[in-house]
Amino acid sequence: MKGSEGLLATAAAAGVDTCFANPGTTEIPLVEAFDQVPGMRAVLGLSEGVVTGAADGYGRMTGTPALTLLHLGPGFANGIANLHNARRARTPIINLVGEHATWHQAADAPLHSDIESLASPVSGWVGRTSSTAAAAGEFAEAYLASLRTRLPATLIAAADHMWGQGGMPVQVPAAPERPQVDEQRIAEIAKVLSAGRRPVLLLGGQAVESAEALRTAARIAATAGAEVLAERGSARMERGPGIPPVRMLPYFPEAVTETFEGFSDLILVGARTPVSFFGYRGQPSHPLPDGLKVHELADTEADALHALAALAEATGSAAEEPPRAQRPEVAKPSGALDANAIAAAIVLTQPDNAIIVNEGVSSAAAYPAIADAAPAHCELSQTGGAIGMGMPVATGAAIACPDRAVITLQADGSAAYTAQALWTQARESLNVTTVICSNSRYRILDHELQRAGVDDPGAAAASMTSLGDPALDWPAVARGFGVEAIRATTGEELLDALQQAQRRSGPLLVEAVL
Amino acid sequence: MKGSEGLLATAAAAGVDTCFANPGTTEIPLVEAFDQVPGMRAVLGLSEGVVTGAADGYGRMTGTPALTLLHLGPGFANGIANLHNARRARTPIINLVGEHATWHQAADAPLHSDIESLASPVSGWVGRTSSTAAAAGEFAEAYLASLRTRLPATLIAAADHMWGQGGMPVQVPAAPERPQVDEQRIAEIAKVLSAGRRPVLLLGGQAVESAEALRTAARIAATAGAEVLAERGSARMERGPGIPPVRMLPYFPEAVTETFEGFSDLILVGARTPVSFFGYRGQPSHPLPDGLKVHELADTEADALHALAALAEATGSAAEEPPRAQRPEVAKPSGALDANAIAAAIVLTQPDNAIIVNEGVSSAAAYPAIADAAPAHCELSQTGGAIGMGMPVATGAAIACPDRAVITLQADGSAAYTAQALWTQARESLNVTTVICSNSRYRILDHELQRAGVDDPGAAAASMTSLGDPALDWPAVARGFGVEAIRATTGEELLDALQQAQRRSGPLLVEAVL
Repeated sequence: MKGSEGLLATAAAAGVDTCFANPGTTEIPLVEAFDQVPGMRAVLGLSEGVVTGAADGYGRMTGTPALTLLHLGPGFANGIANLHNARRARTPIINLVGEHATWHQAADAPLHSDIESLASPVSGWVGRTSSTAAAAGEFAEAYLASLRTRLPATLIAAADHMWGQGGMPVQVPAAPERPQVDEQRIAEIAKVLSAGRRPVLLLGGQAVESAEALRTAARIAATAGAEVLAERGSARMERGPGIPPVRMLPYFPEAVTETFEGFSDLILVGARTPVSFFGYRGQPSHPLPDGLKVHELADTEADALHALAALAEATGSAAEEPPRAQRPEVAKPSGALDANAIAAAIVLTQPDNAIIVNEGVSSAAAYPAIADAAPAHCELSQTGGAIGMGMPVATGAAIACPDRAVITLQADGSAAYTAQALWTQARESLNVTTVICSNSRYRILDHELQRAGVDDPGAAAASMTSLGDPALDWPAVARGFGVEAIRATTGEELLDALQQAQRRSGPLLVEAVL
Repeated sequence: MKGSEGLLATAAAAGVDTCFANPGTTEIPLVEAFDQVPGMRAVLGLSEGVVTGAADGYGRMTGTPALTLLHLGPGFANGIANLHNARRARTPIINLVGEHATWHQAADAPLHSDIESLASPVSGWVGRTSSTAAAAGEFAEAYLASLRTRLPATLIAAADHMWGQGGMPVQVPAAPERPQVDEQRIAEIAKVLSAGRRPVLLLGGQAVESAEALRTAARIAATAGAEVLAERGSARMERGPGIPPVRMLPYFPEAVTETFEGFSDLILVGARTPVSFFGYRGQPSHPLPDGLKVHELADTEADALHALAALAEATGSAAEEPPRAQRPEVAKPSGALDANAIAAAIVLTQPDNAIIVNEGVSSAAAYPAIADAAPAHCELSQTGGAIGMGMPVATGAAIACPDRAVITLQADGSAAYTAQALWTQARESLNVTTVICSNSRYRILDHELQRAGVDDPGAAAASMTSLGDPALDWPAVARGFGVEAIRATTGEELLDALQQAQRRSGPLLVEAVL
């Protein structure tokens, strides 16, 4: 068997069954092997930003790594931005990067470059195949690393190792469990909660991906008189009628500081100490009020579910009913569209168990603000700030969960990065509805110019935030990539378009004109 | 003055007058400065692959660097593939990469990453600003490095250094000249040429960018009974009635070896020893016949123009008339389209002094095979193999040369990487005609599967080379990005479309359906 076949057979036996791909000549032996090794679905993307973003979406939904298949350094490079987001989302991914045959690398052929240097900033593990026989074992290392670190792992596969005979699959050992928080830490946090001060729990990572964890946190908070908040930019957050609503931290640092005013103790549960997205003059990197004490129950690596369960026991709140918080009322949007109207239209039409991918940027916050009124769903957010994740992540989430509706809340400026993802949605007949928040601006940069004191930008600065001349014709872009499209300019039209989307199968794009 | 203003003023004073940009929050001080510093044109791209490819096209045409303005590591990463091509083209470019304020970097905010690690593989120089006052001097270092190395130089500009007061422009010293080849080397090569064997000159880089160099090489060859060939994948190659035709090396290594059969001595003039684009089983990395001796007149850094002039003197060929080689006859294409028909239609309609950007991939070779029949023009090729350069490079070339028509010969698979460039062409009203070679396949991969012995690929492998389900609707994509479009299915329709393109101003896309 070829090296490529041994490698893919190892992957398939470990349960890795999906490969998002944009291959070239150096990857031909792996492309051939797709037909020799049963159980691997190969999904083509028109550019590598689609490929890696889809692997992120897939991994966020399944907790297991998809493969990506990328063409040498430049092909990998095109996928870095969405791997950066995957790194921040703590998504396991295994990148297979084709490389020149070993004997050809010294010749510095046109596509040769330093792949390790490109891969390291977005990978928890980087390695190379060392021979045809060893390649499957090296794949197994990458697989385990992706699950141990919960980060992309990158294996650089030389073409001659892949086309050579003598490949042999290996059995992959069981994936490591998350480390558990020790009892002393649980006892310390229980003591903080029972001290009669004003504590607040900040949930992130695993703690917002589980309905049970969200309920347990609410029980603990109810017993201790604490509040529960969620980190901004979660990889996946569960919501629904059976889950206590949790408010999300705001974006700008002064608003984060204000949110924590009056609290005595901040308890991190799978979350990091809040960090300002950017550094602003006069604002600290960690926007917290003076005197707020930070405690860590579970870091982003630890088993937050176990820690919460243990804390509930220690605080005597395990049997407590989670509090019945009020859920927002959402009115039907009518007339001209704005971010709130778009969010309302989605909340009012999304079917049960939908996956919401939110790359709304300046329109993003409106959705989580009212999403507790929606049926059970999960929301996948922009985690790393590298724009262009929405449509690719939605593509991968739809491949992972073919029975669930996927709805992408998508800013137009970010959409223009990776609109090619629509083609894969069409090709694979995925149930993805993309709602483009079409304001023909990089609106967030208008805000940032104002924050920098530029109330009346000059012509050049203004031109850097405007996408209006010419305005993008999103229905035309969608049709170009094989996806049907509807333009909506009012709340009524948008509701109608989203209802149509749920009655049909396959992808649809809805341009919501702001 | 702010740090950003001192930096831009330094650039403008050095003659750097164009900045291709896709900025974000950390670049706001530089965006503001566009309006404060006269003489800098800021051109927005919808994604960074457009931005860096445009800077490559600009630099190939002018020989001087454009700026790029990119948003932290992920923004830079999106531009790496086209910087890889620029590196292979030896194009000077200055990348300004915005970075978090210095005091915010340790907080590991979501967009934080190792920018140096990303930048090194595609940069001849990487540096960081060290203070507001020093930033302009550090820019001057980057400027000189880009011209000394003829590679992208990357300056990472911290937001607080840019927004701080105390910026001061500096005067940039004159750019270094290319090193000259010494007399002894000239004499040695002259001796090789006069030895009565069968020498061949291989031209590359600077030697094909100058009509005079091409004529001098032809004179030398005529005197010595030598042949002249050109490297494949030149950054810019001049052609026209006043320039002796020069055959280009073929793509596959066995054909390269065959081309050199019968020659005794290979003399490199601004070219590298030929390297196989990929490593193939049974083919060497350097596809040359046994016994061919390789000599270097001028390496890719050296002043090849001077070396050729000195060699002409030394061989007594300076006064020789360049030989009158036969020029190809080109018939009007008719009926169904193929790669030859597309090339013929371009050759027959391109106006005087056009710029041809060739990213035809499997349709690429047909154009240079007959381009000596065309009016004077230059051709910009795919240098590094990172696909998606065609439309961005054309955009930058059109900005650099507003009085010349730009025609992009563009493979469809590669076009799908960076089709966003069309929007910048529309916004800036650039005279670019994009001819999409629309075969709905990654045809080159079909060839590569055959070379690997897979004559009848399985369903999965076949799906990795097909773009047909759904077929991309290129006129719709173009209109989506604000560019008018025509679909042509016959030679007659294509000729008509290209004639229309030359009668109008502004961009046009022509889908040539194969």
